[in-house]
Amino acid sequence: MPTISNKGIAMPQSPIRKLVPYAEKAYKQGKTVFHLNIGQPDIKTPQVALDAVKVHSLDVLAYTKSDGSEEYRTKIANYYSQHNIHVTASDIIVTTGGSEALGFAFGSTMDSDDEVIIPEPFYANYNGFSTAAGVKVVPVISKIEDNFALPPIEEFEKLITPKTKAILICNPGNPTGYLYTKEEIQKLAKIVKKHDLFLIADEVYREFAYDGMVHYSIMQEPDMEAHAIMIDSVSKRYSMCGARIGCIVSKNKEVMATAMKFAQARLSPPTFAQIASEAALETPQSYFDDVIVDYVSRRNTLISSLKQIEGVRVANPKGAFYCIAELPVADAEDFAKWLLESFEYEGNTVMVAPAAGFYSTPNTGLNQIRIAYVLNEESLVKAVEILEKGLKTYNAR
Amino acid sequence: MPTISNKGIAMPQSPIRKLVPYAEKAYKQGKTVFHLNIGQPDIKTPQVALDAVKVHSLDVLAYTKSDGSEEYRTKIANYYSQHNIHVTASDIIVTTGGSEALGFAFGSTMDSDDEVIIPEPFYANYNGFSTAAGVKVVPVISKIEDNFALPPIEEFEKLITPKTKAILICNPGNPTGYLYTKEEIQKLAKIVKKHDLFLIADEVYREFAYDGMVHYSIMQEPDMEAHAIMIDSVSKRYSMCGARIGCIVSKNKEVMATAMKFAQARLSPPTFAQIASEAALETPQSYFDDVIVDYVSRRNTLISSLKQIEGVRVANPKGAFYCIAELPVADAEDFAKWLLESFEYEGNTVMVAPAAGFYSTPNTGLNQIRIAYVLNEESLVKAVEILEKGLKTYNAR
Repeated sequence: MPTISNKGIAMPQSPIRKLVPYAEKAYKQGKTVFHLNIGQPDIKTPQVALDAVKVHSLDVLAYTKSDGSEEYRTKIANYYSQHNIHVTASDIIVTTGGSEALGFAFGSTMDSDDEVIIPEPFYANYNGFSTAAGVKVVPVISKIEDNFALPPIEEFEKLITPKTKAILICNPGNPTGYLYTKEEIQKLAKIVKKHDLFLIADEVYREFAYDGMVHYSIMQEPDMEAHAIMIDSVSKRYSMCGARIGCIVSKNKEVMATAMKFAQARLSPPTFAQIASEAALETPQSYFDDVIVDYVSRRNTLISSLKQIEGVRVANPKGAFYCIAELPVADAEDFAKWLLESFEYEGNTVMVAPAAGFYSTPNTGLNQIRIAYVLNEESLVKAVEILEKGLKTYNAR
Repeated sequence: MPTISNKGIAMPQSPIRKLVPYAEKAYKQGKTVFHLNIGQPDIKTPQVALDAVKVHSLDVLAYTKSDGSEEYRTKIANYYSQHNIHVTASDIIVTTGGSEALGFAFGSTMDSDDEVIIPEPFYANYNGFSTAAGVKVVPVISKIEDNFALPPIEEFEKLITPKTKAILICNPGNPTGYLYTKEEIQKLAKIVKKHDLFLIADEVYREFAYDGMVHYSIMQEPDMEAHAIMIDSVSKRYSMCGARIGCIVSKNKEVMATAMKFAQARLSPPTFAQIASEAALETPQSYFDDVIVDYVSRRNTLISSLKQIEGVRVANPKGAFYCIAELPVADAEDFAKWLLESFEYEGNTVMVAPAAGFYSTPNTGLNQIRIAYVLNEESLVKAVEILEKGLKTYNAR
């Protein structure tokens, strides 16, 4: 029997999706499962995006250009200018989700055995993309007790080796909800310039900044043309995760020419999804205003309810729609499986993402979970109540 | 300035898309360009597929399951059973195009420096996927004078080393139009079993078999459960290249579990495209019958017109919708650029794909082009006429 690849063996299972078989068991048992595990918002996709594909007039569903249509890229550039990010259509390659944009960024900048420094905990699939590219993740640890603020800059510098090619951040952060300050971005810019590294920023949650804080993009930072690579996506912004449209943005021409070779190899991003995504750019500001009011209210409800549970510690997120919670259990993954398999409260249970998968350091975050507050408040309150009852029963066993 | 990756430097440019900037010049000069360079058929997408997304009732364009919906995979399995391929929904992972399926197959079976044997010339992007994965392509050469038949099995065996992990074929072949016989598939099956290799078959052109020949899939061959990995796509079958939906199919559970980890890392294939692709399975047989009549007629016209040009040699394709033609020029890429930049005939010119990019052996196929017969016959006749005039002018310079 032929053997699979070592890379395939090393490839981590997504902590967001790995418990899906347990959830399926729960459905079969007739339970209602509150999904706090995945960043799939219940927020409605803007009608303008949904309608655009309904009125399409295509006869042949053809390939588009490998970097996406010129019109769409021009409109994206215009959207960025409203966020004080000044780029042109040629600085943008449209991708199949932010996932593919990350793949292109990794492929264009890093070889096997190169190193990328990532503040930890981080979006779990960074582990997957790194493994797929043979790249080594070097974590710099941010802590729940510091609300997951960026560690001191010296911590980064200590980790830089001749193999280091990039620093990767997610801002606002998944899974922490941490929003970087302008000063923090400036510190990172200074390091990457000093050590000749790339700074890759996953900014897919740009709009989701709360409490009056303003998102500061790496693309706004001056003199970063050679270094800055931004990853973006329509998934969260317009609650259209299923479109699978994102982009990679950089003013580094060499990076973009290289990313374009990867883009051409896979031919083009999906056509219907580009139609929807282009239309989504017409979404009025009021949509975002309403959504943000919703998320802030959900966050406040979630965090205050979680804090009332004995033994639970939670960091206060300033952006995105996730939080990391520390639970009074030794093994949050075991608890999460148990919730699905062996627990119910009034016919309901809850699915959470064990946080260990968001760390690359072994045996870290074992007692933590990531919660995505993508459900309405009533459901969130119910879900936290189930979690509380579950913790009691679990710990009393 | 930080440097891009060695992999990025090595990444080949797609020969199908690399002349796009020259085509753009031709458009600017006001020329009409006949596109024979890319396998983008002019055939209409089945109405049932186009209509399905028009009547969608989604409120939230959500992620689907990472391996695609159970219903869709069940329907795909049913489609296969009509082609004497017996698989279940769990043997299938829906991907973002055949491209991603190839990426998953490479990632799941091969590590950096492993080797894959591919009959050459081959679909150019295999070079790209191999480079991206750090895998070495070992070509086994098929020749235009043999109509690109599979080289003798001994030629394969000579190339097998401890690093060899797989043989990859495209059947029917892009760019050759070669359709493998059952006996050839059986020979390949014997080798992969003897040497414990994977046999990866890109069968996206399954329906396009001409002259009464019947396609024989590697999935029909018995005792290949551990070895056979099939790549598929809706792109060509339903003329819906822009959907970006394909799949990877294997009965090897270990391969599929590994591919699933890659699938989960990128979350899900595009949702609208899955709606269209699921509906496309309702396409009546009459659609394919008509399309095949069309392609055979186009092929006959193309091949006979090409043969009338002095100094042109062409292999007769038995499937797919490509052919390789040898031209009386030293450098077909230079000629192809010149056609776009410096030539016109009655305001028209033609874009072809230089064939050297379909070889991994350096300096091979330099005088060959790939022609995709994806235009109607009238256009094909015109395009060949332009090619003929172009060759005369080019060679008279």
